[in-house]
Amino acid sequence: MILITGASSGLGAALAALYAKENEPLTLTGRNAERLHTVANALTPFSNRPIAAVAANLADVQSVNSLFDSLTAIPKTIIHCAGSGYFGPIETQDVNAIQALLNNNITSTILLVRELIKRYKDQAITLVIVMSTAALAAKAGESTYCAAKWAVRGFIESVRLELKHSPMKLIAVYPGGMDTGFWPSSGKTLDTSSFMSADEAATMLKQALVATAHGYIADISIQRG
Amino acid sequence: MILITGASSGLGAALAALYAKENEPLTLTGRNAERLHTVANALTPFSNRPIAAVAANLADVQSVNSLFDSLTAIPKTIIHCAGSGYFGPIETQDVNAIQALLNNNITSTILLVRELIKRYKDQAITLVIVMSTAALAAKAGESTYCAAKWAVRGFIESVRLELKHSPMKLIAVYPGGMDTGFWPSSGKTLDTSSFMSADEAATMLKQALVATAHGYIADISIQRG
Amino acid sequence: MILITGASSGLGAALAALYAKENEPLTLTGRNAERLHTVANALTPFSNRPIAAVAANLADVQSVNSLFDSLTAIPKTIIHCAGSGYFGPIETQDVNAIQALLNNNITSTILLVRELIKRYKDQAITLVIVMSTAALAAKAGESTYCAAKWAVRGFIESVRLELKHSPMKLIAVYPGGMDTGFWPSSGKTLDTSSFMSADEAATMLKQALVATAHGYIADISIQRG
Amino acid sequence: MILITGASSGLGAALAALYAKENEPLTLTGRNAERLHTVANALTPFSNRPIAAVAANLADVQSVNSLFDSLTAIPKTIIHCAGSGYFGPIETQDVNAIQALLNNNITSTILLVRELIKRYKDQAITLVIVMSTAALAAKAGESTYCAAKWAVRGFIESVRLELKHSPMKLIAVYPGGMDTGFWPSSGKTLDTSSFMSADEAATMLKQALVATAHGYIADISIQRG
Repeated sequence: MILITGASSGLGAALAALYAKENEPLTLTGRNAERLHTVANALTPFSNRPIAAVAANLADVQSVNSLFDSLTAIPKTIIHCAGSGYFGPIETQDVNAIQALLNNNITSTILLVRELIKRYKDQAITLVIVMSTAALAAKAGESTYCAAKWAVRGFIESVRLELKHSPMKLIAVYPGGMDTGFWPSSGKTLDTSSFMSADEAATMLKQALVATAHGYIADISIQRG
Repeated sequence: MILITGASSGLGAALAALYAKENEPLTLTGRNAERLHTVANALTPFSNRPIAAVAANLADVQSVNSLFDSLTAIPKTIIHCAGSGYFGPIETQDVNAIQALLNNNITSTILLVRELIKRYKDQAITLVIVMSTAALAAKAGESTYCAAKWAVRGFIESVRLELKHSPMKLIAVYPGGMDTGFWPSSGKTLDTSSFMSADEAATMLKQALVATAHGYIADISIQRG
Repeated sequence: MILITGASSGLGAALAALYAKENEPLTLTGRNAERLHTVANALTPFSNRPIAAVAANLADVQSVNSLFDSLTAIPKTIIHCAGSGYFGPIETQDVNAIQALLNNNITSTILLVRELIKRYKDQAITLVIVMSTAALAAKAGESTYCAAKWAVRGFIESVRLELKHSPMKLIAVYPGGMDTGFWPSSGKTLDTSSFMSADEAATMLKQALVATAHGYIADISIQRG
Repeated sequence: MILITGASSGLGAALAALYAKENEPLTLTGRNAERLHTVANALTPFSNRPIAAVAANLADVQSVNSLFDSLTAIPKTIIHCAGSGYFGPIETQDVNAIQALLNNNITSTILLVRELIKRYKDQAITLVIVMSTAALAAKAGESTYCAAKWAVRGFIESVRLELKHSPMKLIAVYPGGMDTGFWPSSGKTLDTSSFMSADEAATMLKQALVATAHGYIADISIQRG
């Protein structure tokens, strides 16, 4: 079973569609129960395997626990796409929006990974963490977003060191310039006509998630162009 | 006037002592009003200039506002030492302690810098952000601490880009292995006998904060050894 | 046509075999003409398209020029695998071996990329540069090797900025822990039984080199495990 | 005694002048014997201690050996300023100039550090390596210069790991935007009127090279502004 977070829109929903069409059993999660079920229902006709939808707020530890308790099998792969964006010069940013950004990106990732490792440290699970090219470089107008994404990267790189002798594999993904529903609600106006669609990014990411007996693709950046 | 955050202990308190002895007017801030006033009172005999103590929780926007409202002059230098540590393998970390760590390091820095730039963007202020060598490399057993410190670094590097045409100078400091009061309360047991004292780190940092007509020391790491 | 450098052994030879079996027209290059022709001849029965072998020393500008002059078509993809390894504590390293290491990794890459851009800047060529995880982190016992690989990374990241408005795509690949013929001759004794084979790395890399209309996988690390 | 490389001009010469005025015994080295002696002779009246000048090509192992053989005492500090610049879009760069750049920056540093460690690994020597902000970020128009500087950084960070149990201290310095004699001969036309002078950078660097019983400033970047 593949567990996909942030599955109610964007890259998460696009990945869900690709895996559904290959008849992978799926558990989809997202904050918005309605949108999540809409996505799951739309995919059900394309798959002969169950597609579960479990709404969860990953920034809340009880919600994370309930999500894992609801799983009927140990996931073989978890693709963590959940996250949100917020932009603008720092002096114009709203305090509540900043805190929501930190919760949606940092706290959610920490609580998800912490619970996963608590439960499944000795399992050969592949954990894919989708960040952004904003995790790799500083950007004017994206100070708090870079803070959030650099945090996730520092966290993940540290957890990798802790998992050195675990069969768990941690894969870091850095997409840039995707045209998801993300931008209109983010406070940033951009011409996204040359951006990748979420479908394109999902197609590439799915194909690049390859492993062999003694190795695996561990870090992936996806660029526009 | 020099504004020092995290001034009630550790590096902040040590820097306050050094600057007090050079008769720099000071404003000290920290979360713990009692400890803060104890530090300020202890320094007062050594200085012929005022040493103000203003308790503030930098992770709270009202508290940050009150702090800045209380200033009787524009600070020429701000040394942001506030922060806390929390350690351990990720599966053993406590959710409330994680959230406190994120607030004390990330939210506090964002709200402080945001307010500073809102008020003083066109002033030739030197803003010194004290992080940790944990902002520069991943470390097993320090995953959430690295998350917090990488966040601050990503934030600061992005704000630097936004301040390109501002007279404000942003200085990043990365100390490693300091023996402050920090470790006993952090959940990590360490032999700190070979660590730098906070006084040593303060002495080095103060001396390295040097600027000339056309340049300044912008990044400083301080190592044990 | 796909041009593969370092094709006479290791990852380059393994990639050549994979692409030959898919009937891609190939030009293979390497320093050792004999080994190169042996590889090319061995692959010829598996492909219905030409497999050219052109020996070249990429650290020599005349040799690079001759290589490009010999091409009968503009390559659509260039996979630059050429390089060599040399290890040991710095005080034990031999001066001639150090210089050979720098030539084989840094000079060769610079001259190859320089000539490619001189000739084909306006072509939609995909240039894949294979480095090593040693380009991403410092390593004791690998100081000059890290120097060589960090150099290539700094070069490639800078050239990427210069190619911002070119249709050329530059892809950076960082494999770690491969069991190629590389180690026995490198001065480093290692148990490589858990290492990826060159075939495994080639299989993963080939699959991960994916692009869509508006994007492409731009950076790939491959890890053991 | 302080050994300064690249002492015949720029930052090296400026540091020599500062230390001479403080009556530090000095050994100055540089490739150009005439310029080197001119610098040394000009400083002699300001110091009551010897100022030796030993011409050396650090990219040549015999020359490095002769330099160290000529020393009458173990240097307590070595400040390695030697290096050169060369710029331009990669397709316009000259092959000989590229090779000279690599020799002057990479080979020279490797051979200097290698010999130093061979001879003095167990000595409490402070080795200061002056690079450039080009070692920290990619830059269009500076691809081979970034290659050279990233190489030095990768080398130095690796050697640091090898010296973990040595009393030797390795300090990395990253100056940006200095107005030395460097630019006119580098192939890059720049308005350097807002750049730091070499004297300014030397003054800041000298002051920031501070150590205490248990720690030292290990990394320093110097920025314009």
